Amino acid sequence: MYMALKDLSLCILNFEIKFHVLRMNGGIGEASYANNSLVQQKVISLTRPIREEAITSLYYKKIPRTVSIADLGCSSGPNTFFVVTEIIKAIENLCRELNQNSPEYNVFMNDLPGNDFNNIFRSLDSFKQNLMISNNNNNKFEKNSCGPCFLFGAPGSFYGRLFANTSIHFVHASYSLQWLSKVPEGIENNKGNIYMSSTSPLNVLNAYYEQFRRDFSFFLKCRGEEVVEGGVMVLTFLGRRSDDPSSKECCYIWELMAAALNQMVLEGIIKEEQMDAFNIPQYTPSPSEVKLEVQSEGSFTINRLEVSEVNWNAYENNWNAMDSESEEFESLIDGGYNVAQCMRAVAEPLLVSHFGEDIIENVFSRYQTLLTDSMSKEKTKFFNVTVSLTRNA
Amino acid sequence: MYMALKDLSLCILNFEIKFHVLRMNGGIGEASYANNSLVQQKVISLTRPIREEAITSLYYKKIPRTVSIADLGCSSGPNTFFVVTEIIKAIENLCRELNQNSPEYNVFMNDLPGNDFNNIFRSLDSFKQNLMISNNNNNKFEKNSCGPCFLFGAPGSFYGRLFANTSIHFVHASYSLQWLSKVPEGIENNKGNIYMSSTSPLNVLNAYYEQFRRDFSFFLKCRGEEVVEGGVMVLTFLGRRSDDPSSKECCYIWELMAAALNQMVLEGIIKEEQMDAFNIPQYTPSPSEVKLEVQSEGSFTINRLEVSEVNWNAYENNWNAMDSESEEFESLIDGGYNVAQCMRAVAEPLLVSHFGEDIIENVFSRYQTLLTDSMSKEKTKFFNVTVSLTRNA
Repeated sequence: MYMALKDLSLCILNFEIKFHVLRMNGGIGEASYANNSLVQQKVISLTRPIREEAITSLYYKKIPRTVSIADLGCSSGPNTFFVVTEIIKAIENLCRELNQNSPEYNVFMNDLPGNDFNNIFRSLDSFKQNLMISNNNNNKFEKNSCGPCFLFGAPGSFYGRLFANTSIHFVHASYSLQWLSKVPEGIENNKGNIYMSSTSPLNVLNAYYEQFRRDFSFFLKCRGEEVVEGGVMVLTFLGRRSDDPSSKECCYIWELMAAALNQMVLEGIIKEEQMDAFNIPQYTPSPSEVKLEVQSEGSFTINRLEVSEVNWNAYENNWNAMDSESEEFESLIDGGYNVAQCMRAVAEPLLVSHFGEDIIENVFSRYQTLLTDSMSKEKTKFFNVTVSLTRNA
Repeated sequence: MYMALKDLSLCILNFEIKFHVLRMNGGIGEASYANNSLVQQKVISLTRPIREEAITSLYYKKIPRTVSIADLGCSSGPNTFFVVTEIIKAIENLCRELNQNSPEYNVFMNDLPGNDFNNIFRSLDSFKQNLMISNNNNNKFEKNSCGPCFLFGAPGSFYGRLFANTSIHFVHASYSLQWLSKVPEGIENNKGNIYMSSTSPLNVLNAYYEQFRRDFSFFLKCRGEEVVEGGVMVLTFLGRRSDDPSSKECCYIWELMAAALNQMVLEGIIKEEQMDAFNIPQYTPSPSEVKLEVQSEGSFTINRLEVSEVNWNAYENNWNAMDSESEEFESLIDGGYNVAQCMRAVAEPLLVSHFGEDIIENVFSRYQTLLTDSMSKEKTKFFNVTVSLTRNA
């Protein structure tokens, strides 16, 4: 049930802050990990048809002898190999359909240098064993052949070049590109907020958007140099449906965290200046913002651009998949706790780096209360923007 | 003085025993690390002209736009990037001489999946900064341009395929290929020994040699598929000059460790059966054995085959380079201690896995005494066999 799911918390590794901040938060309970996993599992499952379409299109056009796949912001968890395995199996199926020999695969797992690559590499054998097993129509496992697969760790920021010119066929990134390369500059007046919000001054919204444009545009330029002509990218952002960048659908989850911090400012636990200087280096783009950047940068053509939704409390996405009598059920039923733990995995390193260790339990205890209250009143969702792109000739 | 030297102890990672055995021995003092480093530094320095010749020949023949370099058994220490940096700087110098643009570099750092790749990746920034600095004729550092360099971790055994077909231009391996993929089979009668020795039965010597032949031949076959036509490999084995595989020049260092273990068998601390079942998965080949395997496998042509020597006590190799009044001098002057610590870094994981933790201090205390005694009586050396190879058309 909880297999093969990468940890949201490590998405945080993909922006440029000092390495000591980039350690994964180790103090997270199992329920929270399972919960993180469920959000990511849902997103991966929702976007599968888009990846399969992109792979089929690539394979029919090119039938390459070596397929080089890059997973950007791969993190490190039981889920790390999930998408790569799915992509390789899809290509193997296409080979059989078209009576072609299997290609060789180069698989590049990218994240910042502080990511736990040792952990990824320790799962190398089971990754390779998984590739040899396919689920046939009778739901019995059978062994298949698969082309030779060479796996590499590719440490570095994806807001920069990672690979040689025209060397990559398929790029995948899920829930990593909403992280900016840094906190936007000139947003000292975003008082009482830690992200964009309905109360943020206009210059704050503009600064966030401009940082997103610069970062994503440079990302596209770098990938444009690396991806072969006809090569494809499938990118999923944590994003929004609305045109309003301060829309509740993307900002509310951070507004509740800001509310918890503001309580602590009022009580004198956190200094107001400290609170004012803290902002999250994230941007949750709309589909039209993604489209605009792709079009103006010019290296890629959009094949598909979609928005999907997952509940904040990922467990609700999988209600039927779990035995309601089980302990898992009990441990996951408290939505406020689950979402707080999920966000803690993402935000704790940033909070610790800025405010210190001591306030953490206090912040997340308040945050959980606010989340539980809010989730009891309304249906709360994450919005995912997925874009499928082909490298222009 | 002690910069940029990889740790002998991690060479041990490059053979197939279970991961729990493959952890680096953390309990080694600084003097011992410096000592390890000095042996490796000396070997790297001795073999530099051979690498430079190989790079020049490669570059003049191919002038590639992308140069892919693989360091096999790279380990993880301050020395890890030393050779790769030297190779890239040599190519950059050739570019300037020939008025060519710099190529792009793919650098693949290989070791077994249990190696500490996280540690390598944490040094990525300083590696890249080093590439930009060259030492000019006035001994002042100046900044140079260098082609873009993409670094990857390549986990896996080099006794198997690691890279796609015809994708590598330069392969380097230093002090890793003497490790076999496993302990040879059928050597139960190697009683009282832990490696080949003058008292080993003939079948033991044959079994070790056959394992070396199988492993090295398969290594050459795999690299033959991966290395481009005209691509080069420079491989340095811990080896021997003599044609006798049980020669003292390669076996004595293990014979002294066997003597320490045999003392403990006599005293009832270790069981005789345990001692008889313990053998080191290493083979220290002669130049002619290396030559024979290359010729019979057929993928590569030998450009150069050389033997070099370094003292067991690496400090003696650098006597003049150190201030004899310093603390470093004091801590390094005890040769028996230094060599015992150096061998401990290599052998402890194997000994612990076979005999358990408890005997370790006892073994190495005895070993040190035996080493000190032996080194006071004769000049003791490691012999290195270096071969430079070109991939045949």
